[in-house]
Amino acid sequence: MDLVTLNVGVIGVGMIGQDHIRRLTHVLSGARVSAVTDVDLDRAKAVAGGLSDARVHETGQDLIRDDGVDAVVVTSWGPTHEEYVLAAIAAGKPVFCEKPLATTREACERIVDAELAAGRRLVMVGFMRRYDDAYRAMKDAVARGEIGAPLMFHSAHRNPSVPPHYVSEMIINDTCVHDIDVARWLLDTEIVAIRVIKPRRNSRASDHLTDPLLILFETASGAVVDVEASINIQYGYDIRGEVVGESGTVELAETSKVVVRREGRYGGGVPDDWRERFIRAYDIEFQDWIDAVASGRSTGPSSWDGYAATVVCDAALEALRSGDRVDVSLREQPDLYQEAD
Amino acid sequence: MDLVTLNVGVIGVGMIGQDHIRRLTHVLSGARVSAVTDVDLDRAKAVAGGLSDARVHETGQDLIRDDGVDAVVVTSWGPTHEEYVLAAIAAGKPVFCEKPLATTREACERIVDAELAAGRRLVMVGFMRRYDDAYRAMKDAVARGEIGAPLMFHSAHRNPSVPPHYVSEMIINDTCVHDIDVARWLLDTEIVAIRVIKPRRNSRASDHLTDPLLILFETASGAVVDVEASINIQYGYDIRGEVVGESGTVELAETSKVVVRREGRYGGGVPDDWRERFIRAYDIEFQDWIDAVASGRSTGPSSWDGYAATVVCDAALEALRSGDRVDVSLREQPDLYQEAD
Amino acid sequence: MDLVTLNVGVIGVGMIGQDHIRRLTHVLSGARVSAVTDVDLDRAKAVAGGLSDARVHETGQDLIRDDGVDAVVVTSWGPTHEEYVLAAIAAGKPVFCEKPLATTREACERIVDAELAAGRRLVMVGFMRRYDDAYRAMKDAVARGEIGAPLMFHSAHRNPSVPPHYVSEMIINDTCVHDIDVARWLLDTEIVAIRVIKPRRNSRASDHLTDPLLILFETASGAVVDVEASINIQYGYDIRGEVVGESGTVELAETSKVVVRREGRYGGGVPDDWRERFIRAYDIEFQDWIDAVASGRSTGPSSWDGYAATVVCDAALEALRSGDRVDVSLREQPDLYQEAD
Amino acid sequence: MDLVTLNVGVIGVGMIGQDHIRRLTHVLSGARVSAVTDVDLDRAKAVAGGLSDARVHETGQDLIRDDGVDAVVVTSWGPTHEEYVLAAIAAGKPVFCEKPLATTREACERIVDAELAAGRRLVMVGFMRRYDDAYRAMKDAVARGEIGAPLMFHSAHRNPSVPPHYVSEMIINDTCVHDIDVARWLLDTEIVAIRVIKPRRNSRASDHLTDPLLILFETASGAVVDVEASINIQYGYDIRGEVVGESGTVELAETSKVVVRREGRYGGGVPDDWRERFIRAYDIEFQDWIDAVASGRSTGPSSWDGYAATVVCDAALEALRSGDRVDVSLREQPDLYQEAD
Repeated sequence: MDLVTLNVGVIGVGMIGQDHIRRLTHVLSGARVSAVTDVDLDRAKAVAGGLSDARVHETGQDLIRDDGVDAVVVTSWGPTHEEYVLAAIAAGKPVFCEKPLATTREACERIVDAELAAGRRLVMVGFMRRYDDAYRAMKDAVARGEIGAPLMFHSAHRNPSVPPHYVSEMIINDTCVHDIDVARWLLDTEIVAIRVIKPRRNSRASDHLTDPLLILFETASGAVVDVEASINIQYGYDIRGEVVGESGTVELAETSKVVVRREGRYGGGVPDDWRERFIRAYDIEFQDWIDAVASGRSTGPSSWDGYAATVVCDAALEALRSGDRVDVSLREQPDLYQEAD
Repeated sequence: MDLVTLNVGVIGVGMIGQDHIRRLTHVLSGARVSAVTDVDLDRAKAVAGGLSDARVHETGQDLIRDDGVDAVVVTSWGPTHEEYVLAAIAAGKPVFCEKPLATTREACERIVDAELAAGRRLVMVGFMRRYDDAYRAMKDAVARGEIGAPLMFHSAHRNPSVPPHYVSEMIINDTCVHDIDVARWLLDTEIVAIRVIKPRRNSRASDHLTDPLLILFETASGAVVDVEASINIQYGYDIRGEVVGESGTVELAETSKVVVRREGRYGGGVPDDWRERFIRAYDIEFQDWIDAVASGRSTGPSSWDGYAATVVCDAALEALRSGDRVDVSLREQPDLYQEAD
Repeated sequence: MDLVTLNVGVIGVGMIGQDHIRRLTHVLSGARVSAVTDVDLDRAKAVAGGLSDARVHETGQDLIRDDGVDAVVVTSWGPTHEEYVLAAIAAGKPVFCEKPLATTREACERIVDAELAAGRRLVMVGFMRRYDDAYRAMKDAVARGEIGAPLMFHSAHRNPSVPPHYVSEMIINDTCVHDIDVARWLLDTEIVAIRVIKPRRNSRASDHLTDPLLILFETASGAVVDVEASINIQYGYDIRGEVVGESGTVELAETSKVVVRREGRYGGGVPDDWRERFIRAYDIEFQDWIDAVASGRSTGPSSWDGYAATVVCDAALEALRSGDRVDVSLREQPDLYQEAD
Repeated sequence: MDLVTLNVGVIGVGMIGQDHIRRLTHVLSGARVSAVTDVDLDRAKAVAGGLSDARVHETGQDLIRDDGVDAVVVTSWGPTHEEYVLAAIAAGKPVFCEKPLATTREACERIVDAELAAGRRLVMVGFMRRYDDAYRAMKDAVARGEIGAPLMFHSAHRNPSVPPHYVSEMIINDTCVHDIDVARWLLDTEIVAIRVIKPRRNSRASDHLTDPLLILFETASGAVVDVEASINIQYGYDIRGEVVGESGTVELAETSKVVVRREGRYGGGVPDDWRERFIRAYDIEFQDWIDAVASGRSTGPSSWDGYAATVVCDAALEALRSGDRVDVSLREQPDLYQEAD
C-alpha cells in the first residue's frame, strides 16, 4: 500500500539540519518537511523559504506542539538536545536526534526514564555507521558465525585534518563516539573499562592536540577493542575496522569503485571526508526512520545507545586526562531496550 | 525550491514494471505513480490497488493521453515499445523506455525522426550501467585523462546461469546489449564492425547455447572492445571491465564491502544476480530522470543510444550466425544528440 | 646426498649470458661455470677473467666438446641456436637454450628429430614464466579443478616502453612468445589458428609500430586465448592473466608486497621491467635445470615447446601482416614429448 | 670475482638445523657444510652421512676449533646458545645463531661484551623477518618518507593452532619475539615499556593458554606498537602489519599469488604455516650471511638485537603475569652497534 507522507519538523537548520532537509525533500520517499525552527530565526526563515510549504516556529517547543508535525528531527546544539527530545517524548511524537543524545549522563538517563514512562521507544539517535553497507556486511558476517565468536575489534578513525577550533576532547566526543557505538553494536556487548595511550604527537597537529591516540576498551563479553584515532593524517578520511573471531576475521574493504594503474602504481582513491564516506548511510538511516515511524515501529540506535555512548565518552575523557584505566558503569538495561535491533 | 511531485504513468506492470513502481513510490523523491496499464488488465488493477491513488487505463495510448500523467514509463514487451514511445513523443510527454528502445532498426529510426520533428529530446532509454557508481568512476578517470586516450576496453559479463527459455540470441540482445552501450559511452565513439568468436561450449550450458562467446567490436575511434559473455559460469554474477589507455588503465574494483578470512582463505562475495549488482544504479537512474523531467531537461541515454544499440545487436547476431566480420552502419548522428550527456 | 657440482659451459656472454653466469656462480647451488665462448672473444675472455677457473673457447663447438663441460647454456644470437643445440645433442650433453629454440620451423624440427634419434630429451628451452610462482599457482588451480575445465585465457603483456631498434615483429617473437608458451602450458593444448586485431596506434609509439595489438588464438581443445600486447603503456611492466573456466576463474594477483596509503590513494607498485617481475622465476628455472641434469632427468619446456612456439609465432606474424585468420599446423607430437612436465 | 666456498660447521642438527643444512647444500651459493655436531651424536652422524664430506664432532667446542670450519651455525637448544656463541667469538669465527641469542639478559650481555672486546661484530641472530620481501618493502617505504615519521605499528601474529606442549610464555618468547624484533627494526627505536591485555580466551585454546593477547609497546621515539597474538585462530598462518605515519600508512599486502573466483566468492589463500610464509626469507637471510662472511663484513640482526629481544621478552612476561605496565631498561648501546644495518 502507498504510504501517507510523514510531516517532519526540524529543530536546528545549520549545516547538518539543512543536509537532512535536502535529504527529506529531494532524496528520500515518504516524508516532507512541514516546519522548521532555529536559534537563528532568520536562518530558519531563509530555509523555510526554499521549501514548498513549511512553517517557521519561534521555538522547538512550539514546533513540537504543531499538529502538522508528525515527527521531529533534532539537529540543534548538543546541550539543547535533552529539552527537545523530552518534549517530543512528552508529546508522543517520534524523534530523530543527532548525536549526542544529550551531553551528560544524567540528561541521558532522564530521556531513558521518560521513554520508560511512555512505555515505548520514540527516540532514534543518529549513529549512521550502523546503516553503512560495509559495517552491515561486517555485522552480518559476525552474526552468521563466519568468524566464530568475536574476541577483538581493531578500529581506526583517520581524518586528514581538523579545523582550528577542534580540541582534544572532540577526539572522544565527536570522532571516536562513532567507534564506540559501532563497537557496542558489532560485538553486542557493553564497554566496561577504558585506557587511553598517547603516542608521540603528529608534528602536523596543533600543540594542544593529543593526536594520535590509541584507545582500548574492555567489554562485558571479554572482547577487547582498540581504536586508533589519527586526526591529522593528511592522506584522506579512512575508516578501517577488523573484527577478530575465534576462527577468522572480517575487515572493512577498500571503498574505491575502480582500480587505476598509472605512473608505476595500481590503486584506488580514499574518501576526502566523512560526507563522501557516509553520505549513503545517512540516506539509508533516514529512510529507515521514516519507514519505521510511518508504520508505528521503532528502529535504529535507541536512547539506551545514546546513554551508553555518553557514559563511555565521559569515562574515555577521564582516561585521557588521567592516563589510568577507568571503569565504566552503566545502570541496568531496561527490558524496553533489550529487544533485537 | 521544493519540487512539485511528478505524476508518472507506467505501461507494463510485470516484474520490472512493478519494481519501478516500488522505486517511484517508496524509494525515490519527487514522483508518484498516477496511472498504470498492462496487457493483462487484471494485473494492472491489482497493482493499482496497492497504490494510494492510481488510475487503471485499458491501453497505453489512453494512459499517455491522461492529463494526470506528466511522464511515461514503458516496461511492456519489447515489440510494443515503439508504439508507446511514439505516442508519448506525439503527446509531448517525457518517456522512460526500458531497453530495447525498439526491436528493429527501422522502428528506432522512426523514434529518432519523431524526436527530431519535435525538436527536443523526450526519450530516455534504460541503460542503467551508466548510473552505476563504478562505471561512473571509470568514465571519470578516462575523462580526466588519468590513463591517456583509451585504446581498448576489456569487458566480461558473467551470469551464474540462465533460465530454460534463454536462447543464444539473448546473449546479444539482453545480456551484451549493456556492454555495447557502456562501451560506446565509456569510449565516446560508435561501433563500426563486429566479430564473434565461439570457444568450446561450457558443458553446463544447454546444447542450443553458444556459451561462452568472445565478441570483438571495432570502433570509429580505432579503439577495440572485447566482451567475454559467460552465462553459465556458476560462481556468481560478475561484471568486469578494464579500459586500457595510452599510459594506464582503469578497472572495475571488487564490489564486496568486507574481506573475510576463514578456512585458509581471504576474500569477499560476488553478487548473486543483476539485481544485487545494479539495484542502486536503477535508483540513481530513475531519480536522475525524475529530476530532469521535473526541471524540463533531458538526460541519460537517448533515442540515438537506443537506436545504435539495436543496430549493433543486429550486426552482432549476424556475426554470431555467419562467423564473419560484420560492418555496422549507422545513419549520420543528428545534432540533437551531439550535446554532451 | 650431496650433489656433485655440475660444470656448465656458456655459449654467448652478452647481457643475458652474463646474468646466467652470475646466477650459476653466486645465487644457485650445485653448478659452476667451467667454460665460456662468445662471438666477441675479448668479451668472453673478460667474463672468464671474473670467474675462478673458466676456460675460454674459440667456438661453441669447441666448448661443447670440452670434457670439462657437463652441460651447455646457449644464450647466443637466435639464428645460431640450432647449430649449438644440435651439437650438444650430438655430444649427448644437456643443453639449456634461451628462446627461441631456433628461428625457423625447419630448424626446430631438425632439433626435435635429433632428440628423437638420441632417444631422450636433452634440451630445455628458457620459457621462464612456467617457473613463476604466480603462473604456477594459476596452473595448480586449474589442475585441481577449482574453476572447472578452462574455456578462455585473457592475457595482457604491458611494457612501459621499447627501445628504438624494436620493430613490430618483435611484439610477436620476443614479447608475446611468452604468452604463447604459457597459454599452451596453462591450457594443456595446442594453438590451431590465429587472428591479430590492430587497435588505433598508441600516440607514444613510433610510427612503424603496431602498438597495441589484440591477438586471438584458437586451440585444439576449443579454448580461446586473447592477448593484449601494449608495449608503450608507460605505467609499468605489467603481466596480467585470467583463465576462465566452466565454473570460475583464476587470475594473477597484484605483485606488490605492501599497500601504501598516501595523498588520497591506497595502492601498490607495479614492476618497472621484466627483470624485476621475473628475476625469481629465472633463478627457480635454472635451479630446476641444474637439479634435473645432475640427477639425469629431463625437465621444463622441451624442444617440442620451442618448436610449437616458433611455428605459432610464424603464423602470428602472417596474421599480423595479412589481417586474416591463419591456421597453425604442427607435425604430430612424438611420444617422447607426451610425458607429463 | 668468483667467491671461495665457505666451510660452515653446524651445531645442532634437529629439524631447524637440518633445514639450514639443506639450504646451505642445495639451495644457496658459496657455502658447504664441513662439520656437524649434536647433543645426539647418532643423529649428527646420520646427517653427516647424507653430506659429501662433513666431519662429525663430539662437541660444539670441538667443531668451533676445527680449522676446516670457517663459520658456525648454532641451532642447538636455546640454553646452550651462549656457550657456543662465546666460543665462536673467542675463536674469531663468524657465527649465525638462531633466536634466542641467549635465554637471559646476563648471558646476552656477556656475548655483547665479548664482541666489544673482540672489537668487531661476529654474531648474526636469526630474525628472518628482516629478510622478508614484504617487511623490507615496508621498511623501505618508511625510510623513503612515504608515510611521514612513524607513530604507530599495528601487528598481528596469527597461528592456526599450537602443539600440545605450547605454554603461554611461548606466546612471548617464541611467537611475538619476531614482532618485537621487527618493530624495533621498522621503527628504528627501542621498546621502553609494555602492557599486556588479555581478551576472553578463545574457546578453541587449551585452558592454560592466554589466547589471544593484545600486547602494547611504548618506544623511546614515542611511537606505540600493538601486537595481536592469536594462536588458535584456525583459518591460517597470517602475519599482518601496518605502520601508521604522520601522513600515511604502509601495510603488508596479501601474499596469495592468484585470485580465484568460485562458489560465490573471490579471494586467495592464506599460508598454512610459518614455513610457507617465510621460507624464502630464510634463504635470503642465509645467503646474506654467507656473502657477508665471505667478504669479511658483518650484516643482519646483531648481538645487540638479540640482547634487546631477550630483555623485552622478559619484561613482556612480567607484564603478562602482573597485568601491570612494565618498564624495559637496556644498557647504553655501544658504538659498535650503532652503524647502519
